[in-house]
Amino acid sequence: MLEELKKQVCHANKMLQTHGLITLTWGNVSGIDRKKGLIVIKPSGIPFDELQPENMAVVDMDGKPLPGSLIPSSDTPTHIELYKNFMNAGSIVHTHSPWATVWAQAGKSIPPLGTTHADHFYGEIPCTRKLTEQEIKSDYETSTGKVIVETFADRDPEAMPAVLVHGHGPFVWGKDCKTAIENAVALEMVAKMAYHTLQLNDVKSIDRWLLDKHYNRKHGKEAYYGQGKKNQKSKGHE
Amino acid sequence: MLEELKKQVCHANKMLQTHGLITLTWGNVSGIDRKKGLIVIKPSGIPFDELQPENMAVVDMDGKPLPGSLIPSSDTPTHIELYKNFMNAGSIVHTHSPWATVWAQAGKSIPPLGTTHADHFYGEIPCTRKLTEQEIKSDYETSTGKVIVETFADRDPEAMPAVLVHGHGPFVWGKDCKTAIENAVALEMVAKMAYHTLQLNDVKSIDRWLLDKHYNRKHGKEAYYGQGKKNQKSKGHE
Amino acid sequence: MLEELKKQVCHANKMLQTHGLITLTWGNVSGIDRKKGLIVIKPSGIPFDELQPENMAVVDMDGKPLPGSLIPSSDTPTHIELYKNFMNAGSIVHTHSPWATVWAQAGKSIPPLGTTHADHFYGEIPCTRKLTEQEIKSDYETSTGKVIVETFADRDPEAMPAVLVHGHGPFVWGKDCKTAIENAVALEMVAKMAYHTLQLNDVKSIDRWLLDKHYNRKHGKEAYYGQGKKNQKSKGHE
Amino acid sequence: MLEELKKQVCHANKMLQTHGLITLTWGNVSGIDRKKGLIVIKPSGIPFDELQPENMAVVDMDGKPLPGSLIPSSDTPTHIELYKNFMNAGSIVHTHSPWATVWAQAGKSIPPLGTTHADHFYGEIPCTRKLTEQEIKSDYETSTGKVIVETFADRDPEAMPAVLVHGHGPFVWGKDCKTAIENAVALEMVAKMAYHTLQLNDVKSIDRWLLDKHYNRKHGKEAYYGQGKKNQKSKGHE
Repeated sequence: MLEELKKQVCHANKMLQTHGLITLTWGNVSGIDRKKGLIVIKPSGIPFDELQPENMAVVDMDGKPLPGSLIPSSDTPTHIELYKNFMNAGSIVHTHSPWATVWAQAGKSIPPLGTTHADHFYGEIPCTRKLTEQEIKSDYETSTGKVIVETFADRDPEAMPAVLVHGHGPFVWGKDCKTAIENAVALEMVAKMAYHTLQLNDVKSIDRWLLDKHYNRKHGKEAYYGQGKKNQKSKGHE
Repeated sequence: MLEELKKQVCHANKMLQTHGLITLTWGNVSGIDRKKGLIVIKPSGIPFDELQPENMAVVDMDGKPLPGSLIPSSDTPTHIELYKNFMNAGSIVHTHSPWATVWAQAGKSIPPLGTTHADHFYGEIPCTRKLTEQEIKSDYETSTGKVIVETFADRDPEAMPAVLVHGHGPFVWGKDCKTAIENAVALEMVAKMAYHTLQLNDVKSIDRWLLDKHYNRKHGKEAYYGQGKKNQKSKGHE
Repeated sequence: MLEELKKQVCHANKMLQTHGLITLTWGNVSGIDRKKGLIVIKPSGIPFDELQPENMAVVDMDGKPLPGSLIPSSDTPTHIELYKNFMNAGSIVHTHSPWATVWAQAGKSIPPLGTTHADHFYGEIPCTRKLTEQEIKSDYETSTGKVIVETFADRDPEAMPAVLVHGHGPFVWGKDCKTAIENAVALEMVAKMAYHTLQLNDVKSIDRWLLDKHYNRKHGKEAYYGQGKKNQKSKGHE
Repeated sequence: MLEELKKQVCHANKMLQTHGLITLTWGNVSGIDRKKGLIVIKPSGIPFDELQPENMAVVDMDGKPLPGSLIPSSDTPTHIELYKNFMNAGSIVHTHSPWATVWAQAGKSIPPLGTTHADHFYGEIPCTRKLTEQEIKSDYETSTGKVIVETFADRDPEAMPAVLVHGHGPFVWGKDCKTAIENAVALEMVAKMAYHTLQLNDVKSIDRWLLDKHYNRKHGKEAYYGQGKKNQKSKGHE
């Protein structure tokens, strides 16, 4: 079964490129096998074009690579921190996709300005506080995970599957690799459109009922998207 | 004859991708056979790459799928509302194309700032009012159609084949799939250029006579584009 | 020899697409054979993909199509007006390329803000005045040509091979099709960069000596680009 | 061994196109063989598509082409000035990539607004002063090199492998062609994101400790990226 997860994680890493979310090697995807307590993640320093299922790195929940594994992405401790706290996350994506990163650099949360946002994210996409000097100097990548978890103290990571790390960039997650990648794609587009909307008009948020309607018609108990459970291939609205 | 329409609607859905108007599965195209009173539309939850003429959904004017049809797009009630009121519309396109959506999110109509606009849209491209809480909570997609129709109370949907739904995105139409797609492409470019024009200079509109000239040389009774009716392959200016 | 010109004009029309200057059918290229007094131009209403050397339209200096020719682009009278007045122009390009069109819609000339500009355009790229109601209503396309010529009353069309028509878009020219296309590509990039430069800083123009240096090292009598006349394949700086 | 360098320089020139940093022929890459005191550089006036390892120009440290060499890029004297002063530079890249050029045209240094910046550039990416009239009129390309060197009087060109020449565009370098190209790609993205960040929020810089952390975890003595020296294929963070 790890073979299947390695295949999915490898494919998802390559999809980051397909969707234009990657410049050079700035990004990584991981997936978790919660029963085995093992995480599969992009190996450090291997170009996207050379990724194969068999060279995916595998680490345990302490970040220790399994024997024979390549060295995992240096962001691995951040991923682990999120998996430990966001129990529904099956896959995590980190990129420096430009529009999401612009908001992270500005230190601003992305307000919900339209139904595209509401279809994927239930409310404003939060930006973390800055890390302190101490947090950066000692165990930086774990601190990054901790500040994300802190930001979600009063948020539901299932309804809000993305965060902007202050001065850095986005982390995004989902129940599986496919959903996590879709959320990363949606975040980038939502970030781009929110940026330009605010240049045109100083709007604050769509109405709560419109946010509710769009989020729930897709994710709620009475969601009415797709071909029913059997044939449902996508949760996108269409 | 529905076979031909299914082919056209399927092709038009794929053209949304070709023209870069689609992110993930955010969009759909429909076409109508007015004699039969049947609408062909993208099925819900099927990725664009898997669309085939034979899996296009077919519904009647009450939105009821024909036996054997896949479940239609959840936006189908909006399409039906428009077909019932805009009698010249043979095809309807809905996307979340980013520049048009930015204007919709800002809640602003797009003023006619150049001849590119005038070649396709006769006047400002209107943005609807917001839907009320009640309209959103009961029969949301039909309400979306109704607020569009309300916006066109004093407008001609043939001369203005596009609208921005407040906080949501564009709906576009045309006499057939090809024209509706061209209008969707034109809207996106016009929205992008109007946005940037206003950052450079606080202009209001081109002169009425320039708007008239460009719209009419292409769409008026004495239009002088193309190779005459026989060989005319495109209504673009060139 | 018209066969060779037809080939070049056809190729140049297709290059507009390659360089991303074209949306739908919004644009055209022409070339002139000054000895024969004949102009080869994109036919009206034929999609770019279907263009072939043999279906290029051919007109005389009064705009009359040669027997057997397809109907020429409706912008032909503008091209003719320019050929009559700009004796060094061997080819003319008209597009609605977005960044140049944004400046045209804003009614602003593009100031020379960097050496990229100076490498192609000697000074600010002018925007015409608006056409009057009368000019638009009678012989619109010829009036468009005339207002361009008027704008160049005190300018050298060889040193400034581009203009923005107010509320419309760019016309660009060059000694041959290749040069005209290169100037159209350069204009679009220069327009994009000038727009963003002004958002960052309220600069006015590069110094006259920098403008002179770059323009003359490429176009002046003592230009020192390329492999010498024999092997020179491009006038770009590299 | 010059054959190997010619191959690398030729490949790097083509990579400028692959990464979208080139419009027309606006750019060039060189590499140096410091033992032989020879520089390999793009020949002047040859389109990128026609570049072959064997037609790369070769010059000595006085800019004199070797017998049989094509004429080198007219920017060669700038490259030479940099190689003479930045002893760790093994390759130099010059482009007019739009976002970096926008900052150069605005005459502004790019502040470090995020970790993407810190991963590649240790501090603000400087913009040179303007060249004087005298410097432009006499030996312009060498003056361009000298003003860059002047800008680095109190900077380390290894920790800051890029500069913006006022009113012109970027020069970027690295220990070899691959690194120089990666720095050019990173500069363009950093320039784009910094531009938009400042439109959203008037931020000044990330904290010094975050800058230090990101720069040093990748470039410092205790860098912990990649698969160790043996397998390290990329210095990107992933």
